[in-house]
Amino acid sequence: MNRHIIVSQLGLLFVLLSAIMLATSALQFLADVIQGQAIDASAVGALFITGVAGLLVGGIAWQTHRRGSTFLGRKEALLLVAASWFGGAFIAAFPYWLWAWLHFARGDAHPFLSFVSCYFEAMSGLTTTGATVLTNIEALPPSLLLWRALTHWLGGLGIVVLFVAVLPGLGVGGKRLFQIESPGPSPEGLQPHIRETARWLWFIYLGLTSAQILALWALSPMDLYESICHTMATLATGGFSTMNASVGAYHGTLATDLIVVFFMLLAGINFGLYYRICKGNVRALFRDTELRVYLGLIALSTIVIASVLALSPDPIVLTTGERAESTVGESVRQGLFTAVAIQTTTGFCTSDFSYWPFVAKAILIGLMFVGGSSGSTAGGIKIIRIWIAFKVLASEIEQVFRPHIVRPVRVGRTAVDPEMKLGAVTYVLGMLVLAAAGSVALMVLEQVFAPEGRCDFTTAATACFATLFNVGPGLAHVGPVEHYGWFSATSKALMCLLMALGRLEVFAIIVLFNRRFWQRL
Amino acid sequence: MNRHIIVSQLGLLFVLLSAIMLATSALQFLADVIQGQAIDASAVGALFITGVAGLLVGGIAWQTHRRGSTFLGRKEALLLVAASWFGGAFIAAFPYWLWAWLHFARGDAHPFLSFVSCYFEAMSGLTTTGATVLTNIEALPPSLLLWRALTHWLGGLGIVVLFVAVLPGLGVGGKRLFQIESPGPSPEGLQPHIRETARWLWFIYLGLTSAQILALWALSPMDLYESICHTMATLATGGFSTMNASVGAYHGTLATDLIVVFFMLLAGINFGLYYRICKGNVRALFRDTELRVYLGLIALSTIVIASVLALSPDPIVLTTGERAESTVGESVRQGLFTAVAIQTTTGFCTSDFSYWPFVAKAILIGLMFVGGSSGSTAGGIKIIRIWIAFKVLASEIEQVFRPHIVRPVRVGRTAVDPEMKLGAVTYVLGMLVLAAAGSVALMVLEQVFAPEGRCDFTTAATACFATLFNVGPGLAHVGPVEHYGWFSATSKALMCLLMALGRLEVFAIIVLFNRRFWQRL
Repeated sequence: MNRHIIVSQLGLLFVLLSAIMLATSALQFLADVIQGQAIDASAVGALFITGVAGLLVGGIAWQTHRRGSTFLGRKEALLLVAASWFGGAFIAAFPYWLWAWLHFARGDAHPFLSFVSCYFEAMSGLTTTGATVLTNIEALPPSLLLWRALTHWLGGLGIVVLFVAVLPGLGVGGKRLFQIESPGPSPEGLQPHIRETARWLWFIYLGLTSAQILALWALSPMDLYESICHTMATLATGGFSTMNASVGAYHGTLATDLIVVFFMLLAGINFGLYYRICKGNVRALFRDTELRVYLGLIALSTIVIASVLALSPDPIVLTTGERAESTVGESVRQGLFTAVAIQTTTGFCTSDFSYWPFVAKAILIGLMFVGGSSGSTAGGIKIIRIWIAFKVLASEIEQVFRPHIVRPVRVGRTAVDPEMKLGAVTYVLGMLVLAAAGSVALMVLEQVFAPEGRCDFTTAATACFATLFNVGPGLAHVGPVEHYGWFSATSKALMCLLMALGRLEVFAIIVLFNRRFWQRL
Repeated sequence: MNRHIIVSQLGLLFVLLSAIMLATSALQFLADVIQGQAIDASAVGALFITGVAGLLVGGIAWQTHRRGSTFLGRKEALLLVAASWFGGAFIAAFPYWLWAWLHFARGDAHPFLSFVSCYFEAMSGLTTTGATVLTNIEALPPSLLLWRALTHWLGGLGIVVLFVAVLPGLGVGGKRLFQIESPGPSPEGLQPHIRETARWLWFIYLGLTSAQILALWALSPMDLYESICHTMATLATGGFSTMNASVGAYHGTLATDLIVVFFMLLAGINFGLYYRICKGNVRALFRDTELRVYLGLIALSTIVIASVLALSPDPIVLTTGERAESTVGESVRQGLFTAVAIQTTTGFCTSDFSYWPFVAKAILIGLMFVGGSSGSTAGGIKIIRIWIAFKVLASEIEQVFRPHIVRPVRVGRTAVDPEMKLGAVTYVLGMLVLAAAGSVALMVLEQVFAPEGRCDFTTAATACFATLFNVGPGLAHVGPVEHYGWFSATSKALMCLLMALGRLEVFAIIVLFNRRFWQRL
């Protein structure tokens, strides 16, 4: 085991995060000065102190270990991925915590006074989940809201891609790292020149970010700051908003909804496709099976949800608390927005789907499990795996009555090899088992640590799904206008683990619990 | 497609069932005469009329088709299996229905006045599920209760084994039929001489039946009639009782509980093991992985459930409505009985586990999914598949950090081949998906067809699990002291399908929905 590479790269990650914190701190300071307001010392101070401390710790770690071996083996890569998220969330949580301690007087109550809650918020940001512990988001200083959005954005395409594209020093190990990190089996995926590819991805991500910021700023009621925050949360399929009512706060402007839907859709597509389009291979877009299934599924769920909403006599409850007549137009609009927000695991909300009819909620839960495409910023099990598993199921059924006909399972024109079949089916099964086990564990933890709490099984189960699949909102007491602040600290810690498991596609984390992994380290 | 063999064998099945009905009818007649009671004309008549009609229809079908080809291909076998259960339930349901129409006056309400409910009860019997539509079981005439138990017993080891062992005329096709019917992949399973094996199984089944009847009659408060009915329900892992409070009606006698637990355990073991013991291979018993896992899982769940019950301050609510102090002894007793009853998918109850703490209920639901051993009369996914899937999951995790070490997945000393691995994992996944889809479908059906009904999601989900895995009782409104009579007719029809899907291990039924299956028939 080569500890040098892990420590030095973690150090670099800390330096990067700290530098961004310092910049955010400076922005708040400048904004306050320019607008002639009193300077928000707590926010500026919290970000500044964490930034300086992080620079110091990260810099020292990097300096002392950068001259060591740069060999990155599989075990090192796995450990580095896990450590990046758990360590990254650790430093990212500090500004929240410091701010709360600087800002509130003794005896005040605020979720950020608990470090576990801050860690939850940071992990939720970096894993692009978007679950929050906050009851009143709008009361947070702008710099902290920006930092929240930045954790999404940084987590979005993966700190790892950033590592590979921006930070030097990984060499050949970069490929291994990418293999582990790249979400999904990506059968038609990215090719050898990883470093170059990663740079391309980074530019694509930047391009999409600029485009959405401009679109929102120009066409929606959002100002530049809100546009930036919402864009970062959209492209990372995160879901942190600056408003308590999420994107629903801008209701009344169809443009906002449509822009956000469009970019959520884009964020849920395999970024490898964009790369190939940039390389001139536009036909790839039309031959991609996963893309077709993805769009088809969203279209289908939108149609069903919209029909159910339109047929239901109840009005649609918006996240602002207002009620809208469930006309066909409104039903389609809310159905589309919510289906896209949930399937891409963004978790932005314009209506409170807790009140929706059972069928609509069941579909949303199904979409949480499916998630977006492999190689996108979305979470969930991923379309390609679901598709392979579905094909394998169909072929197993045919085998029953036609045992002698061997028909290869295909995705597009590619025959799926046996290992990938087994891998996909096992992954889907494993996630279902994990989702069930997590739900039960959450429920039990709440019963033990908060016996007078408000956790029912619907809440526990959807909280598990919403964190494991990096969605954000669930149902009942973790619904669109609810929050995660009331969970016991132990449950929050478990959900942090679930978020990391989901984001890193389970295996990178779960091997850490395997005895054999630590043997002969 | 050879229709002759299907029609003639179905005819024979009808003849067999009808003959047993006539015998049951005669028994009620004789019993009434001997006891000097008024003869229960409705019950005697219902069984007699159905018996005569069944003999006629079955006899004609057999006579007109028995001279046709006896070729039994794979498609014929699948169709025959499906038709046996759906057709068998059809004729088995008639006595209930006729009895209700003969017995009740116009305007009376009884579940059996609806044919769908009767069909549900018959399917629940033949699939050894044990879910009932009856509110007052004890009000049924003894002959009908005996017929209910007989449907369990006949369904138990499989009408099909009966076919192969008792009825002539299948020839080589018997092997194919057995392969489809025999529950589970049975890696160390039954060998070539199917006809002889089936006869052995039949004798073993008869032997176990006699043993339990004698044990219950001698050592428990049950009379001979009750002993017979409960034995049939035990060995078939069915769960129909003659009492409203199920086996709990005999509470106070530890012997009853222990005898029933012992024979439920035996019924959940692969009957192939008994066959091999009969053949002198006693060592097989000690080398069987599935048996060890099965017993280990039951022991583990009993310990956890008993601990939870003992630690909980609430008393244990018995099926009789009484409350028992949750002492260690009582907790172990109730935990053991319920864990065995649920894992073997028998569904007998002595306590109302609807009131149990969440953890205990979660474990019971998990056990429903797992079920008994392959080659037993139990339902569920089956231990061996769960075990293989678990091993595959573990090996996939190891693959992440040790991609170059190929370690074969083993069950006992046998390496599991890739096809069987994929088959097991896919089956487990398929059943989970089916369970989820069935739950949602039941909930939706109830909302549409009984919008004022009592169906909540816990009820819908556990009703789905309890029928799909052939358990019987679920939670909430289908709990141990509840019933299925209140479901809408459409939901009952769906649950009949679920029971058949579970009993015939899905594929034999689901291929019927496959377009390709019917091509070039």
